[in-house]
Amino acid sequence: MANTTSDGDAILFTEEQEALVLKSWNLMKKDSGEWALKFFLKIFEIAPSAQNLFSFLKDSTVPLAQNPKLKAHAKTVLVMTCEAAVQLRTAGKVVVRDSTLKKLGAVHVKSGVVNEHFEVVKFSLLETIKEASGEMWSEEMKGAWSVAYDHLVAAIKNEMKP
Amino acid sequence: MANTTSDGDAILFTEEQEALVLKSWNLMKKDSGEWALKFFLKIFEIAPSAQNLFSFLKDSTVPLAQNPKLKAHAKTVLVMTCEAAVQLRTAGKVVVRDSTLKKLGAVHVKSGVVNEHFEVVKFSLLETIKEASGEMWSEEMKGAWSVAYDHLVAAIKNEMKP
Repeated sequence: MANTTSDGDAILFTEEQEALVLKSWNLMKKDSGEWALKFFLKIFEIAPSAQNLFSFLKDSTVPLAQNPKLKAHAKTVLVMTCEAAVQLRTAGKVVVRDSTLKKLGAVHVKSGVVNEHFEVVKFSLLETIKEASGEMWSEEMKGAWSVAYDHLVAAIKNEMKP
Repeated sequence: MANTTSDGDAILFTEEQEALVLKSWNLMKKDSGEWALKFFLKIFEIAPSAQNLFSFLKDSTVPLAQNPKLKAHAKTVLVMTCEAAVQLRTAGKVVVRDSTLKKLGAVHVKSGVVNEHFEVVKFSLLETIKEASGEMWSEEMKGAWSVAYDHLVAAIKNEMKP
């Protein structure tokens, strides 16, 4: 299976930035499902209509906070962003398998995801990591996660052209 | 000039709810320009692309926090939401002048405002009032502002049909 990237040139992601992402990830790892859920509940607090983007939420009668599918999905997104950071450092680019990236692009187009959604997700991600990191939180940590997220989104958007 | 409302039936907005809105507004009144600016900076923190919706920001070289037009606009929105609350109590409906409401609807359609924007604005408004209210903040206060905002938005959306 071939690997693809959304960016032609290698991205500069410093050792320090990678360390900052991993440092905060290590704090969340043990309860990553809970943090991921908090992350997505923040998204829906800001933009309740974003719930309509998730097929598994449409006919669900389970409260959001108890929805195992939501928790699993949220964890995937959180882990993927963290992995993007590691890849930026080791490979200078976001590496996602061809098939995965195409599927991610297609599913985001089909669900009706627009730019504003990616922005709300980014804000919610950073707020969640801020809360999880406590005193460890810094502008540099925010920057490192932001870069990783932005490049992951760029890779997905690159496959969102209809 | 005739008055119009977006809702047919009178809305129940209690005396207590009106008092909660006015209580927090009294805390912000003296520095309402500053609080309004904070409110809009929060919107742009969450959704940076929302800046493109404002014609006066497009070619501006002034930093957001120093933009007098943004501050004036933000204050208008904040005051309008507060007035909506008072109207819900006194008139049981949001009362905006016919011409104003039509203009508001048209300008929101023209700018490309979608549902998600109204949601991000609501979240940012509530976060700002929470910060301004300090220990006075409560679920009831949040609820009162939410109802006022929702009805104002409903009135605007009602005029947004192309």
